[in-house]
Order: sequence, then C-alpha cells, then structure tokens
Amino acid sequence: MHPLTAQITFMLEIDKLKAVYRKTVVQADNNRHENSAEHSWHIALLAQVMADYASEPVDILRVTKMLLIHDIVEIDAGDLFAFAEEHDHQAQEQKELDAANRIFGLLPEQSGQDMLSLWLEFEQAQSADAQFAKAMDRVLPVLQNMSNHGGSWKTNKVKKSQVLKRNTYLQTIAPKLWDYVIEQVDIAVNNAWLVDD
Amino acid sequence: MHPLTAQITFMLEIDKLKAVYRKTVVQADNNRHENSAEHSWHIALLAQVMADYASEPVDILRVTKMLLIHDIVEIDAGDLFAFAEEHDHQAQEQKELDAANRIFGLLPEQSGQDMLSLWLEFEQAQSADAQFAKAMDRVLPVLQNMSNHGGSWKTNKVKKSQVLKRNTYLQTIAPKLWDYVIEQVDIAVNNAWLVDD
Repeated sequence: MHPLTAQITFMLEIDKLKAVYRKTVVQADNNRHENSAEHSWHIALLAQVMADYASEPVDILRVTKMLLIHDIVEIDAGDLFAFAEEHDHQAQEQKELDAANRIFGLLPEQSGQDMLSLWLEFEQAQSADAQFAKAMDRVLPVLQNMSNHGGSWKTNKVKKSQVLKRNTYLQTIAPKLWDYVIEQVDIAVNNAWLVDD
Repeated sequence: MHPLTAQITFMLEIDKLKAVYRKTVVQADNNRHENSAEHSWHIALLAQVMADYASEPVDILRVTKMLLIHDIVEIDAGDLFAFAEEHDHQAQEQKELDAANRIFGLLPEQSGQDMLSLWLEFEQAQSADAQFAKAMDRVLPVLQNMSNHGGSWKTNKVKKSQVLKRNTYLQTIAPKLWDYVIEQVDIAVNNAWLVDD
C-alpha cells in the first residue's frame, strides 16, 4: 500500500474518536457530554499553558503527541469512567492494547510503531514526559467540574479520596498544581460536589 | 492576579470552542456538525502524520501549537464557511483580531503575547511553519468530504476551483499532497460532489 493511502486511512479512522463520549459535560454547550477528541485538544493545550509547572524538564512536543493520541484506543475500547471498579480497569487494559495494535497498525510500519511505543510510554507512566502528560489528562476534569458546580463528580457521587488518588502524579511532577487540587477538592466537599471520604 | 488563576481562566474560557460548529460533518456520529475543538485536535494530529511531506524543514512543535490555537478566536467571532464571500472574510478578520486580543489576553502577559504572535504568524501565512499549518487545516476537509460522498461540498454546492484555490499552499509546501488533492477533486467532479467550475 502507498504510504499516503495508509496515512489517510488512519486519519479517517480516528475521526471516530469524535463519537466517543465521556462522563464530563461541556458547560458551554448545554451540558452535553464531552467527546474524547475535543478533550484531547483541550489537554494538549493545557500542557502548553502549564509546562512551566513541571518540576523536571519535559519534552513538550512528546507530551503533546502523547496527549493527542492517548485516547484513540477508545474507538474500539470505549471510554471507561475514571472512577470505575478496579476489575473493569483491568479488562479495559487488554481491550486498549488490542485497539492500539489495530489502529496505529493502519499507519506505515515505522510511524505506526513510533505511535504505539509513545502510547505505551504514556500508559506505563514511568518517564517524566508520560507522567506530565497523565497529570494534564487528570487535572483538567478538576477544573471543568469545579467551574460547573461539581459536574460529573456530583452526578456520579465521586469521593474526594478518588480525585486525590487519581491526581497523585501532580505531587511530584507539578507540586504547585497539586497544592491547587488539594484546595479545590476541599471547596468541592464543602459544596457537596464531592463525597467527603 | 496569580498566574495560575489567569491560566485556569483561559483554559475554562476556551472550553467554549467545543460549542462552535463548522459546516463539516462527522460521518461516524450520524453526520452531526463538527465543532472547532475536535477539528483542531484532528489537524494537529494530521500535522504529525504528514510532517515528512513538507518540502522545507518545519518546526512541528510550533506548527502543532498554531493548529491547537488557530480557531480559538471563533469563540467570539464564530466560524465563517471557508467558501463564504470575500467581503464576509474581510469583516471576519477584524472580529478575529479583537477576539485574539481578548482571549489570549486572559493569560499571564508573556504567554498571552507569545500565543497572540503565534496566531498572527498563522494568519499571515508567510513562514514555512504557518504555511504548513494552514495547509493541514485546509486539506483535512478534502479527506473528510471525499470519504463522505461529498459531505459539506455537496450540501453547499462548492466549486472545484474554490477547493483548489483554498489548497494552493500545498503546491509549494507539500507537493505530493497537492498532487493528491488534484486527483481527488477530479474524482469529486465525476461524482457530482463538486461543481465543475
């Protein structure tokens, strides 16, 4: 297959991410559910804006690429709510790996392998780049829910401890943002937007 | 104002781009209209995938940033159809400049100025980075409409000459993609997806 044909096939396949809906809602658009494509755009920009809070040097191009591709696997695997049960998360992992192989495999071999390896790095969250990227993915819903009277936290009876656990990457990778999250979850508990547990 | 407060204000303001709808439709989501946030995600990824077609070196991080921010002005100015009348395009320019000053002005001063200047560079399309970014923004609807039986071209009776004119940046900045577009518009005319004019 001609490389350009493969690249176009990939670009059209990922159009489907615009049809994968998350729990988070878009306040500016009548609280409709947010899709994973527009969410990916938002966190990619968050990374640009918050880059200076990283406690160790991050390669912002690699971070941005990770954020642009990190949810593509949901085309096959669907979006799992961040605060789903542990066994659901484990089942999701295998589905996402299969999806990554299929979808990045649509690209010409070398670039498909590069994207797969970047996606795996994000998932494993061992490198500074991946941890900063994960932190961006996880902190944005805090901002969205706080500006939307609890948003998806309130609807789904999410606990303060769950939000803190989910944001722990911030503690080392962006301590100033971690301090901010701690402040915000306390405000959320006081407003009954988060369960105090 | 604390820089973090300004940064968060900006991040929440741009959430509104998810409520700005374009003429292009999302085939995978019952042909609903596409919004400018998910479109920005899609072209930012297109730039990663097509970077090797650039005829001169481009800084892909700068290109990506341009693509992530290029439509933010539509929050105030709205999306103007690519094939609108010339006088509408001129009126739109001033609205977009005002919007850029207001929205990027929400950020801490230096980063707001950096984004404004990157946005202006994109708009002026003089640098290789800006021309490659513009080319990505303009070629993606070709792929989308071709895969969707003419899509927004057919609905809006768009002419072949309009699509070619809109994509002329490709001619010098990514000649192989230009050749592809020429092939595709001929197929589109044969299928009555584009007006032969």
